[in-house]
Amino acid sequence: MEKKIITSPSIMCADLLNLETSVKALEDIGIDALHIDVIDASFSPSMPLGLDTIKRLRAKTSLDFDVHIMSTNNDWFIEQILAIGVQQISFHYETSLHADRLVNLIKRKGVRAGLALNPATSLSCLDYLLPQLDQVLLMLINPGFAGDAGEKQAAYSEQKISDLAALIRQRKLSTEIQVDGRVSLESIPHLIRAGATNLVLGSTSLYIPGRSLLENKKLLDAAIQNGKLEKPESM
Amino acid sequence: MEKKIITSPSIMCADLLNLETSVKALEDIGIDALHIDVIDASFSPSMPLGLDTIKRLRAKTSLDFDVHIMSTNNDWFIEQILAIGVQQISFHYETSLHADRLVNLIKRKGVRAGLALNPATSLSCLDYLLPQLDQVLLMLINPGFAGDAGEKQAAYSEQKISDLAALIRQRKLSTEIQVDGRVSLESIPHLIRAGATNLVLGSTSLYIPGRSLLENKKLLDAAIQNGKLEKPESM
Amino acid sequence: MEKKIITSPSIMCADLLNLETSVKALEDIGIDALHIDVIDASFSPSMPLGLDTIKRLRAKTSLDFDVHIMSTNNDWFIEQILAIGVQQISFHYETSLHADRLVNLIKRKGVRAGLALNPATSLSCLDYLLPQLDQVLLMLINPGFAGDAGEKQAAYSEQKISDLAALIRQRKLSTEIQVDGRVSLESIPHLIRAGATNLVLGSTSLYIPGRSLLENKKLLDAAIQNGKLEKPESM
Amino acid sequence: MEKKIITSPSIMCADLLNLETSVKALEDIGIDALHIDVIDASFSPSMPLGLDTIKRLRAKTSLDFDVHIMSTNNDWFIEQILAIGVQQISFHYETSLHADRLVNLIKRKGVRAGLALNPATSLSCLDYLLPQLDQVLLMLINPGFAGDAGEKQAAYSEQKISDLAALIRQRKLSTEIQVDGRVSLESIPHLIRAGATNLVLGSTSLYIPGRSLLENKKLLDAAIQNGKLEKPESM
Amino acid sequence: MEKKIITSPSIMCADLLNLETSVKALEDIGIDALHIDVIDASFSPSMPLGLDTIKRLRAKTSLDFDVHIMSTNNDWFIEQILAIGVQQISFHYETSLHADRLVNLIKRKGVRAGLALNPATSLSCLDYLLPQLDQVLLMLINPGFAGDAGEKQAAYSEQKISDLAALIRQRKLSTEIQVDGRVSLESIPHLIRAGATNLVLGSTSLYIPGRSLLENKKLLDAAIQNGKLEKPESM
Amino acid sequence: MEKKIITSPSIMCADLLNLETSVKALEDIGIDALHIDVIDASFSPSMPLGLDTIKRLRAKTSLDFDVHIMSTNNDWFIEQILAIGVQQISFHYETSLHADRLVNLIKRKGVRAGLALNPATSLSCLDYLLPQLDQVLLMLINPGFAGDAGEKQAAYSEQKISDLAALIRQRKLSTEIQVDGRVSLESIPHLIRAGATNLVLGSTSLYIPGRSLLENKKLLDAAIQNGKLEKPESM
Repeated sequence: MEKKIITSPSIMCADLLNLETSVKALEDIGIDALHIDVIDASFSPSMPLGLDTIKRLRAKTSLDFDVHIMSTNNDWFIEQILAIGVQQISFHYETSLHADRLVNLIKRKGVRAGLALNPATSLSCLDYLLPQLDQVLLMLINPGFAGDAGEKQAAYSEQKISDLAALIRQRKLSTEIQVDGRVSLESIPHLIRAGATNLVLGSTSLYIPGRSLLENKKLLDAAIQNGKLEKPESM
Repeated sequence: MEKKIITSPSIMCADLLNLETSVKALEDIGIDALHIDVIDASFSPSMPLGLDTIKRLRAKTSLDFDVHIMSTNNDWFIEQILAIGVQQISFHYETSLHADRLVNLIKRKGVRAGLALNPATSLSCLDYLLPQLDQVLLMLINPGFAGDAGEKQAAYSEQKISDLAALIRQRKLSTEIQVDGRVSLESIPHLIRAGATNLVLGSTSLYIPGRSLLENKKLLDAAIQNGKLEKPESM
Repeated sequence: MEKKIITSPSIMCADLLNLETSVKALEDIGIDALHIDVIDASFSPSMPLGLDTIKRLRAKTSLDFDVHIMSTNNDWFIEQILAIGVQQISFHYETSLHADRLVNLIKRKGVRAGLALNPATSLSCLDYLLPQLDQVLLMLINPGFAGDAGEKQAAYSEQKISDLAALIRQRKLSTEIQVDGRVSLESIPHLIRAGATNLVLGSTSLYIPGRSLLENKKLLDAAIQNGKLEKPESM
Repeated sequence: MEKKIITSPSIMCADLLNLETSVKALEDIGIDALHIDVIDASFSPSMPLGLDTIKRLRAKTSLDFDVHIMSTNNDWFIEQILAIGVQQISFHYETSLHADRLVNLIKRKGVRAGLALNPATSLSCLDYLLPQLDQVLLMLINPGFAGDAGEKQAAYSEQKISDLAALIRQRKLSTEIQVDGRVSLESIPHLIRAGATNLVLGSTSLYIPGRSLLENKKLLDAAIQNGKLEKPESM
Repeated sequence: MEKKIITSPSIMCADLLNLETSVKALEDIGIDALHIDVIDASFSPSMPLGLDTIKRLRAKTSLDFDVHIMSTNNDWFIEQILAIGVQQISFHYETSLHADRLVNLIKRKGVRAGLALNPATSLSCLDYLLPQLDQVLLMLINPGFAGDAGEKQAAYSEQKISDLAALIRQRKLSTEIQVDGRVSLESIPHLIRAGATNLVLGSTSLYIPGRSLLENKKLLDAAIQNGKLEKPESM
Repeated sequence: MEKKIITSPSIMCADLLNLETSVKALEDIGIDALHIDVIDASFSPSMPLGLDTIKRLRAKTSLDFDVHIMSTNNDWFIEQILAIGVQQISFHYETSLHADRLVNLIKRKGVRAGLALNPATSLSCLDYLLPQLDQVLLMLINPGFAGDAGEKQAAYSEQKISDLAALIRQRKLSTEIQVDGRVSLESIPHLIRAGATNLVLGSTSLYIPGRSLLENKKLLDAAIQNGKLEKPESM
């Protein structure tokens, strides 16, 4: 049976000054989870959102919270996010001295654990951790630099997704492959065909300006369906 | 002529999920500036608010933005805040290797420059900088730990305010003294009498639960008036 | 000819208040080396033992000292340990910018050099260093967190040992495989069968409470023998 | 009434391989507290003792534990030491961003709080904290470098003690002045005369080689008595 | 057609007190690029040359500048070097959190981008970046420790060059392989045979004492020719 | 008898590509010492000069070397500079955890020790160290930012010099006061009158463009003489 493609709109593209309303609108159109980027200005020069904002939002919606931590201090942020109460936490391998421990810490709380990889990071870091993970988050752009003029989706994005999908199949796992960075209506079919199963959605898909959220949602669904059709049988 | 007491409600106590509305309500009751705490989780274990939130809010209100940076990377945060466009920036002496330079950097952009001091920090750090500053921000509790069970206003708060006020008088300056941390209706008269001229307002003054913003504002105005009356003539 | 299994009781389980006596007891039952964990509270939140303790112990026993450095400042600690005079030093790859240099530094002093890997660390870091090493130390739990409630031996421990053993055979080397973390009488046969050749012994083997050191030693020897018998011929 | 001079032998000079016996001997001759140096190799290049050693010793003696933390991570070490259970904790001002908070943290647990100052550190850091402190620890040598060839007691040691004693008298406080670093039978009378009230004892006083602990204790008592006699009435 | 071997004399071996003359001499004998080592004393304990020296030299010669950054702060150094104006920049993978971004940053300015690897670093870090790179710089000794007594060319140097050459061929790329560290007249033929295409030249090749630059250049050319002849056809 | 004003031209203004010649020219006109700025890019964003350049220059001139270290790693740089062999070393108080020790380290080698202070730094850091110092280096601009557009000599420069001179007189010391940053022919008389005794010379004094070194030297001597004449008798 084919895998469901999970849709995770980024909170970064919601209306930050009217979050309560803005998140309700996401609930209304039906999405799978709210993707929340936490960046600490030390991992990369960006600090978009605060923890108090997330904490207060938790009380107002029953949407799944899918948190992507971009920090040089994973221990502290994971602790904070666990205390807020979320459904999934991904943290970066590149800044984790004790990655195995952090995965255990998250899973012992009944929360799904993901490992996030920067574009250039080799998949060899998954040699032993892969079976412990609920998700691998592949960054398709350099995280925290989304606003930079020249930041494009890495040329090798599809290859990397497809390499990871092969690894997961070989080891008979069901790990989700989340993709983040310039995920667009145009690229979605290709990303899904390569093996992506969870899409982080922003200004090039669910939030394309000039159309309503619902209109974008329909185009998104079509793009996803398109990707599934093109996907080779064996995957 | 007596000095105006500036009122600076903290954005931390506004409704973070409905900021646009919440800040309009502050405009309506008439306050002097919006006090915005920026903490980077490295200065102290807290990261309440994000820069994107501040940036978007800038476009929606003409209130003065008074930003208090609590960071171990003042250079980068000052640059970001200057780009957003604000009226005053205070940064901490304790994490500034080149404090003189940062003051100049802020002032060259036509923005008011403040130096923030942790409770225990001696005023000797003002020996040469004081005349360059528009404001000194005295923290009356340890910044970033407001939520801690035992955090009370430091016992020596009034003494420190009063020492600083004396320094400013001796050098014939007009530097503002901003106070932050458990500033309450009860303590305001004492703080003003000691020499405070700018009050950061939170859950123990403008945001006391159970009363409307306007009701709290009236009690606040009374407390301020009370402090002015008690103030010795010479100050 | 089959390989000797080296036994390395951890000093952490000795009586830290009566080390002289406690180490003599280890000498009496016959063990191969004293395993000494050096953690600097920066690598992981733990600082069990001090360097002065190790230095003074050096003067009192002729046992081989096998030191496992867990530090973010390998250069300094290797220098200190070399000055004390030991037989083997392992340091962590994850905190070594110049790993090749540190290996050379140790070996030029006539001391055996080991590389320690956290559970999640891929063996790809051995691609070029393996032939230079006397030992690879595979951590089976996250080092420095032994006291944590949920810390169990990583599920993939045997697989990783067996992968490393295969690499060593392929390259016709005789590198020792040291295993550390919940090495127990029950797991020892499996670990040896997978390829472990050096066992770090603690509270689940040589120091099981309620039995004398000698009684535990006998059970340990039996477990080791058991592991050897089960081992496939070709290894 | 004159102040009692507190004697605090350093654990560093005890027999680290036979601590249980060695500490009992200190109990027998009657001392006021065991002084325990905790250095993390990041504050200064030294890591003499471990936390597990201290923890286990706690269970074996009822002596007061007086801990001197020399660390760049005071938060974590204070937490650990509080968990072990001690009577007094001193930490360094030079590495404390939130010194007021750390003092409160210690005192809320019913433990005495001390602030430690490196030789060159000005007393201006005490401007506001002094009344909150139970003790100021004045380092008379650079902490963590005791073994260095050229480390002598700073030439300005008596002056600094005497300046601090004057501050304490002016503010009518009863803060203890602990002195640490080459405190010798010869210098003790001078240090006491200058205002020291707590002596950290090592190899130049209680542990002078060639004499028994008891013999050294008698000479020490005489030196202390000598210092008291010489002390001007007004102090 | 066979590949040109690029010669890059290191500025470190030029006469640092008479750089203008010394660099002109290099121009005269005909070399391909000036190799400039930038070390910041934080990457390794060395800081040979300053940025102002490089900047002023840029105005005096039209030689290609090939800069090798050894820093823990690649972002800042890359920015500085780009501002000076150079032809190629290599930075270290081991200290790059966002390696993909740095490569893009360099290439968007029309400058060639290289990735530098310490001796022990696995080639797995090239899994996705390799096609984006103009060059891979393989360090054959530990960078910044050239002056250390025991620093020899790593035993596995040729193997690593040859592994990288195979990767490049498999992926049909034309990435240059630069080698740095004890590149000598004796080793050059072997390095070229293994696949090196760019030689960093120092005191064991172009700057061998006792001979003129021109005489060394001729011996160098012969060694290079020798390496090409020995090279198997298929490469 | 009046104090000699020491002249210390900065190496930064010499011809970095022809240092040997350029330094000989300084010898010829007669100056007191060569002032050498060492910045590590971590203290401030600048790394003008390298250690190898200084080392090689040491062999070519007998001028006194007066080194100003601007680093976050004073220990290592002091060690390196001591090994090169210089006459005076100043390091920054703001980045020194163990300032007393560093002063001793320098003086034990027979080298003069200076403490450097950033513009905003209070003189209270000299409370105990002042008598141990041969020199205090007062930065009149923020060190490492000389090239910034808006960097001017701090408005409080003369006041700070004069405060320090008063301290030195009160304590009957002969500590030199070195001033660095926009020291110009115009400001020199004022700086000397305030108490400066050692001038770091750059592009606004000895290296004013359009005049020969000798012409500038004569104007400099006149400015110095001018400053001395204006100086009040008591100083």
